[in-house]
Amino acid sequence: MIIIVKQEHTQKDLDHLIKWVQDQGLAVDVSKGANSTILGLIGDTSVIDIDLVRSLDIVENVRRIQEPFKCANRKFHPEDTIVDVGGVKFGGDNFQLIAGPCSVETEEQIIGVAQAVKAAGATVLRGGAFKPRTSPYSFQGLGGTGIELLLKAKQATGLPIVTEIMSVRHIDLFADVDLVQIGARNMQNFELLKEVGRMGKPVLLKRGLANTIEEWLMSAEYIMSEGAHDIILCERGIRTFETYTRNTLDLSAIPLLRELTHLPVVVDPSHAAGIARLVRPLSYAAVGVGADGLMIEVHNNPQKALCDGAQSIKPDEFADIVRNLDQMLPLVGKKKVGAQ
Amino acid sequence: MIIIVKQEHTQKDLDHLIKWVQDQGLAVDVSKGANSTILGLIGDTSVIDIDLVRSLDIVENVRRIQEPFKCANRKFHPEDTIVDVGGVKFGGDNFQLIAGPCSVETEEQIIGVAQAVKAAGATVLRGGAFKPRTSPYSFQGLGGTGIELLLKAKQATGLPIVTEIMSVRHIDLFADVDLVQIGARNMQNFELLKEVGRMGKPVLLKRGLANTIEEWLMSAEYIMSEGAHDIILCERGIRTFETYTRNTLDLSAIPLLRELTHLPVVVDPSHAAGIARLVRPLSYAAVGVGADGLMIEVHNNPQKALCDGAQSIKPDEFADIVRNLDQMLPLVGKKKVGAQ
Amino acid sequence: MIIIVKQEHTQKDLDHLIKWVQDQGLAVDVSKGANSTILGLIGDTSVIDIDLVRSLDIVENVRRIQEPFKCANRKFHPEDTIVDVGGVKFGGDNFQLIAGPCSVETEEQIIGVAQAVKAAGATVLRGGAFKPRTSPYSFQGLGGTGIELLLKAKQATGLPIVTEIMSVRHIDLFADVDLVQIGARNMQNFELLKEVGRMGKPVLLKRGLANTIEEWLMSAEYIMSEGAHDIILCERGIRTFETYTRNTLDLSAIPLLRELTHLPVVVDPSHAAGIARLVRPLSYAAVGVGADGLMIEVHNNPQKALCDGAQSIKPDEFADIVRNLDQMLPLVGKKKVGAQ
Amino acid sequence: MIIIVKQEHTQKDLDHLIKWVQDQGLAVDVSKGANSTILGLIGDTSVIDIDLVRSLDIVENVRRIQEPFKCANRKFHPEDTIVDVGGVKFGGDNFQLIAGPCSVETEEQIIGVAQAVKAAGATVLRGGAFKPRTSPYSFQGLGGTGIELLLKAKQATGLPIVTEIMSVRHIDLFADVDLVQIGARNMQNFELLKEVGRMGKPVLLKRGLANTIEEWLMSAEYIMSEGAHDIILCERGIRTFETYTRNTLDLSAIPLLRELTHLPVVVDPSHAAGIARLVRPLSYAAVGVGADGLMIEVHNNPQKALCDGAQSIKPDEFADIVRNLDQMLPLVGKKKVGAQ
Repeated sequence: MIIIVKQEHTQKDLDHLIKWVQDQGLAVDVSKGANSTILGLIGDTSVIDIDLVRSLDIVENVRRIQEPFKCANRKFHPEDTIVDVGGVKFGGDNFQLIAGPCSVETEEQIIGVAQAVKAAGATVLRGGAFKPRTSPYSFQGLGGTGIELLLKAKQATGLPIVTEIMSVRHIDLFADVDLVQIGARNMQNFELLKEVGRMGKPVLLKRGLANTIEEWLMSAEYIMSEGAHDIILCERGIRTFETYTRNTLDLSAIPLLRELTHLPVVVDPSHAAGIARLVRPLSYAAVGVGADGLMIEVHNNPQKALCDGAQSIKPDEFADIVRNLDQMLPLVGKKKVGAQ
Repeated sequence: MIIIVKQEHTQKDLDHLIKWVQDQGLAVDVSKGANSTILGLIGDTSVIDIDLVRSLDIVENVRRIQEPFKCANRKFHPEDTIVDVGGVKFGGDNFQLIAGPCSVETEEQIIGVAQAVKAAGATVLRGGAFKPRTSPYSFQGLGGTGIELLLKAKQATGLPIVTEIMSVRHIDLFADVDLVQIGARNMQNFELLKEVGRMGKPVLLKRGLANTIEEWLMSAEYIMSEGAHDIILCERGIRTFETYTRNTLDLSAIPLLRELTHLPVVVDPSHAAGIARLVRPLSYAAVGVGADGLMIEVHNNPQKALCDGAQSIKPDEFADIVRNLDQMLPLVGKKKVGAQ
Repeated sequence: MIIIVKQEHTQKDLDHLIKWVQDQGLAVDVSKGANSTILGLIGDTSVIDIDLVRSLDIVENVRRIQEPFKCANRKFHPEDTIVDVGGVKFGGDNFQLIAGPCSVETEEQIIGVAQAVKAAGATVLRGGAFKPRTSPYSFQGLGGTGIELLLKAKQATGLPIVTEIMSVRHIDLFADVDLVQIGARNMQNFELLKEVGRMGKPVLLKRGLANTIEEWLMSAEYIMSEGAHDIILCERGIRTFETYTRNTLDLSAIPLLRELTHLPVVVDPSHAAGIARLVRPLSYAAVGVGADGLMIEVHNNPQKALCDGAQSIKPDEFADIVRNLDQMLPLVGKKKVGAQ
Repeated sequence: MIIIVKQEHTQKDLDHLIKWVQDQGLAVDVSKGANSTILGLIGDTSVIDIDLVRSLDIVENVRRIQEPFKCANRKFHPEDTIVDVGGVKFGGDNFQLIAGPCSVETEEQIIGVAQAVKAAGATVLRGGAFKPRTSPYSFQGLGGTGIELLLKAKQATGLPIVTEIMSVRHIDLFADVDLVQIGARNMQNFELLKEVGRMGKPVLLKRGLANTIEEWLMSAEYIMSEGAHDIILCERGIRTFETYTRNTLDLSAIPLLRELTHLPVVVDPSHAAGIARLVRPLSYAAVGVGADGLMIEVHNNPQKALCDGAQSIKPDEFADIVRNLDQMLPLVGKKKVGAQ
């Protein structure tokens, strides 16, 4: 962090400012030029409230230089993190496909979809048990029963499972879940992040609808600072003024994240657009932009889906997409889907 | 909800669609014109997934007509709701001032600020005990101890208190808190909304940074559908592309909410802009636009505040603002601050 | 501008960088600390492409310190600019009301509205002759004929007139217009800005729908750098994700602009919300936040207006709003509407 | 357009409304159900101001059904439009590469870059002669001289050229330009759109930073309604809250546009992100999502570029990207770059 001191300062005020910075546990590098005095703050500046510094009388201006995240920062961990989800590896030159229905509905449905997506090439099964719905009057998911059904589908197919946690009250129910999902609306539910970080499990962290890349990595930092190391980031669209799509998928985020962090990043094209017809082109785009995997909604009867049917594709289309992805992957330095 | 059926439909497909709608518990009003067939859905259309309907083969288009919220809807509850917070009334022609520091820090600090803001005209004391911070390395608040200190300040001044809840784990700690705050980042933490809705207390619901007015009212609906009736909405800025201010205060929302809902609405000018110098003009603006109150950060030493000092004003400035507000209030049909 | 040089630089590279900066006409203040070398650039850094500097191999980071605008900057022109529009003064402790229909339609209509708004307290007449419409199939305004009708209304009432210019081809038609408006969609039509800047007339510059405060002031700078000094800024709402209002009125911009620039700022509550019922509360809010005036759409028959009827209010309501404004103005240090 | 009439209407009011609609040149289909009366408007509803209708006393609600654009609408022109730019075909199964520097600087520079990008596979040369810059103090381009230099590069290489027009005053200078570009900031400069539409040339229409897909197509409609038929749309990023990238590239727009319009769509990854390192992954993504081509900034000395050097790549990297694109194109049903 760089603090530009006002030209008309007194030495006493300057000393006072320097001492205040040092009291925060930082070293100060004072640079006096002919026309300005600049303080370079050395150490962990993530503890400093930049707005507070800016409001001090002696301060002309202040600028942050270092990213405020550490555990997630590629600078301090140059090699890719490989996250192991029940034997399925995310990151590096691996490419994985998470697929399944928006909501778990019945045993027949979830096992049927699981078998279909496995046959098509999926390597992890998704399915909502606890569902975050805008309206309290919408179907809220089967809850614990939904997790039990997912575990039956896991047993039937061997696919590891991922499902969303919405409350610290439900942590015990996730004991056998392979990958714990934090949804977009809970990306800054900091108490949930902390407790999930203490579960000792891989975490799939979705980007919040209005959250910057930096805030997203800070939320990963919350989880990691509690001891968890295996985080998979999931881009699923941000909120903009455009209304033809439900959200705007921010694919530029993927190559940026590749530079900023060592964590794997997957893309969810189903929730981003909210339109089933866009799943295929956005999946191809996600491969092109360098994603480590995709998370796709597949339902064996989208028109009867209890939620978000409009964005689900059928197993046949999913299988066809996977065949094409397999051809594209070598061009971006990835192995075939699921190959290890 | 209006469904426009494709011109080339068969009667069988139409009958099938009508039956499907009826199966959702709705009545259907079929309107056949010379060139189009339109279904008007009668009943509680909030249960219908509009995207799902749109994806059906027979459907040309579909449009929602009714707002999807009920308990919070002024149509079904025309008169203003008056929320009683420890004897202080929000709504109707009342105007209230919630004031206090961003964070509770020490007994001396919180009692000092409480006395100062009370003397200046504040009617409710605010103070953060659990603090939602972007970084896990920032001060996270005093937690339960902070609530104890707030209760001491309440005892010392008689001011009812409001403070933010961040986890269902902390509900017991809020037993003596007069007004339970749901923060912007938890506006769609639906499990928290439900449990807070069962506490039997007034709730202050802040708008999420990227949430529409409709989603905000749907979150109020979550709380109300659990039995709580006393909700105060709090506008605190939304996220836009503008970077000179931390958020963009959406004052147009206040007169719109006046039409849409019977719940009182207050404005937080401190968090919206993140700049202390903007608190005064935005406070005047909030009165002009018809708010039922303000929530302002006041600190007796902003430069030493442990969080968000940059947006806090001093008690003297707060007192001066209140004096001017008292002059403006009759012009917008409100009584003096705190008058009952 | 501050350039932080990478620690591992050679002296030769540093000398090369310093020379490059000096070649841009700037002086360099080199600050060497124990751990970092920082260059402070002195002079007109508005000519420097910050992204280009950031891409240089020797550069660790770069931060802009000074605002990139000069003519419009209050630092170099501390006192308020008073803009004289046909004898009506904007800025300082003046408060003015621009009112009139969205479009000029007929002589009877524009003179009727002009008389009505003058009687109610308006000090400048607005009316669209050239209309920017999203659709080529919508009414595009009467063009030059519209300006002639406005001039007749000016003659009939004595009110100075403001109307929007959309093309450099029409400059001659604006010879007798008192205040030339640049609309939101043309805020970055730089060729138009330059030519309007050479007209020697006061200019009303609306904020673009997606433009930051800084870009807005840079557009004022375009006009001013051609010799015009009398610019009135007009906030009219920015584009956000919220859809209940057409745009989100950014009232925080007004006190910020008060600090950043010496130019007067007015608010257009009609276009911001697109809803007539919101004109009154947003007008009160604009006064509270310190605007130098309002620009309001008034039509004697809103339901028959050829454009934007939905956001127009009737003369009676306008008159009632003005009466209330007159009571509020002294509280914010302004004289009565139009008082000079 | 669908108008839902309030239940408590009189027959006289209803007749009056129907007559008003008919006076706008539309037919009305009246659908009377048991509980509601709905008017279906038949004909060109693009002339109707939906906000005005909504404000009528008798109207409960109103919804637009048809897209408001016609010439650009795929419904009325199902087959792809193929745009011929000096013999280079855009649209259908063609894939084209527009490349060149941000600004034309010298004859040596533009011919050098033109030869390099042609050798690498580019099929159209780009280069800015008139430059839209946020600051009046930034380099504004060589103007007419720049176009002359582009024409020399065309002569030297045979590549057709595209360059941006910023004012109707410059139309004559574009007589020999193959493809006339409308920049993002002028997307709603309607007077420019109209005059360019009368030039009888192909037009490249960039999306405005804050413009919806619908508004973009309406601007294409402005050009087409003046007689031009050969429009190429160019997605270049929209403005969001994210600040790590200059803009957010909205790749979902491409498959949506494929459904909505018959016009070809290209993607500009250079301006979208403003970061040279992102050009490669975003180019691959654009191919994956189905774009008809790319527009890429290439400079033989990015660090000396007079504008936007930070987002330019070098010819070698461009050539390497093209080689990879050629491998991907068959997977999305496109021929090799430039193949006809």
